[in-house]
Amino acid sequence: MQAEGATAYADAARASDAVGFEREDAERTLSLTVSYNGGPFCGFARQPGKLTVQGELEQALSLVMRRPVEVVCSGRTDAGVHALGQVVSFNVSVKELESRSLYSLRRSLNALTHEDITVRTVEEREPGFSARFDAQWREYHYHICLDDTPPLFMRDFSWFVHADLDIPAMQQAARYLEGEHDFKSFCMAASAVGKPTCRNVHEISLSRETIMGEEVLTIKVVGNAFLHSMVRTIVGTLVMVGRGLRKPEWVSKVLEACDRTAAGENAPAAGLVFWKVQY
Amino acid sequence: MQAEGATAYADAARASDAVGFEREDAERTLSLTVSYNGGPFCGFARQPGKLTVQGELEQALSLVMRRPVEVVCSGRTDAGVHALGQVVSFNVSVKELESRSLYSLRRSLNALTHEDITVRTVEEREPGFSARFDAQWREYHYHICLDDTPPLFMRDFSWFVHADLDIPAMQQAARYLEGEHDFKSFCMAASAVGKPTCRNVHEISLSRETIMGEEVLTIKVVGNAFLHSMVRTIVGTLVMVGRGLRKPEWVSKVLEACDRTAAGENAPAAGLVFWKVQY
Repeated sequence: MQAEGATAYADAARASDAVGFEREDAERTLSLTVSYNGGPFCGFARQPGKLTVQGELEQALSLVMRRPVEVVCSGRTDAGVHALGQVVSFNVSVKELESRSLYSLRRSLNALTHEDITVRTVEEREPGFSARFDAQWREYHYHICLDDTPPLFMRDFSWFVHADLDIPAMQQAARYLEGEHDFKSFCMAASAVGKPTCRNVHEISLSRETIMGEEVLTIKVVGNAFLHSMVRTIVGTLVMVGRGLRKPEWVSKVLEACDRTAAGENAPAAGLVFWKVQY
Repeated sequence: MQAEGATAYADAARASDAVGFEREDAERTLSLTVSYNGGPFCGFARQPGKLTVQGELEQALSLVMRRPVEVVCSGRTDAGVHALGQVVSFNVSVKELESRSLYSLRRSLNALTHEDITVRTVEEREPGFSARFDAQWREYHYHICLDDTPPLFMRDFSWFVHADLDIPAMQQAARYLEGEHDFKSFCMAASAVGKPTCRNVHEISLSRETIMGEEVLTIKVVGNAFLHSMVRTIVGTLVMVGRGLRKPEWVSKVLEACDRTAAGENAPAAGLVFWKVQY
């Protein structure tokens, strides 16, 4: 499916500033919990002429609602990044809600969207709920394959580092990143210009798991909010420590530098899953 | 890669009855532990002009050894069935073993085979070892997605039954299949003609797991050996019970019938993983 349909709708909607229904009728807010395999998508955010998760969701919603629908997401994801529990919100009128059940809406959306998107839940929220602004914290999981041969079942969902990793050193390094810090060094440089770059990272924990028989290091990162490519830069930086290229203490210097070039490289998109949002 | 090369080699080898090196020099036996994503393959067994796991392995081994190599596997898998720990064995001469390390052999094989095959280990075994005849027991895992929406991360590795399953009833039904029985009802009819169909199933256990955030029922089946499509027929039969279409006791009648049409349908290939072989 192409995103152009939804974009055309959305443009029309922005032009009329009415998003398809009269403002006085805009009384209900719905949210979707959405999983996607990020592989085929040019990221979450709608882009004209490109396959995006937002484009797919908005096109499906617009078809079902017979009017342009725009969604707000809890966190944009880059091309190739997956999601287990992305949340999006949008408004509907009382009438629109009366004419269909949430269950049938979910079924329609799953029938209409790309096969790499699954709408897990459709819920009614408090009026005015925003998937973005009402989020208390967000959780990401990054998977690194620890086997000495390439992963098969986890191939599309992990980073094959192909090196022994000193996991205790990585965990020690991660401690420097927990808490409230200026994460400018961990933000894609162009995105950080003139914007606040302080964030509160509640937790970074590393655990070994066996997934489908393959050895995986899962790096769980929880925080109030995240900068552009922040989790992948955190992972790339921790892997520098894990490979013995840097000491754990180096990470505090990276933070202090407030300079993207001080940190490690972005870890590949495929290893990252936007796991969960707490409201 | 095509299998024709290996097949041509193999035919030549059979013709000369020498398999590429003099018999008196055939003193060593190697085994490979092989994982594969069964999706792209027309099964394990070599077939002229078709992409098969055996064809790929033999072609790569023949290229490395510069002579035709044929492998023996611990258990053939059908088209679409995956493997975590398939084991194959083949003979090499002392000279062939002296000229390369097992590590470099593994690396060459991983470079030469299809990307959906990973050679995990290369080991030297007792002379005359056979991956097929020396196997004590084999273990298969079958994954059923329990979520009420289609799986994403487990899509290629599970069966989306799309129904509530009574797991205790399935476990109860599985008890009838444990032990030594004539499993003719659970064998593809054409394969059972004129062959012994008694097998010893040591264990069938069901457990819920969360894999990459998706709810999965894993059915582990362990036995001395298996008939053609036996595990998938066992799973299809247990799912009939899980869906409430049959009582657990019905399974004992299916066994007694010694007739493939008495059992449930084959569960889809994608859910099955040939997990492990014990020697």
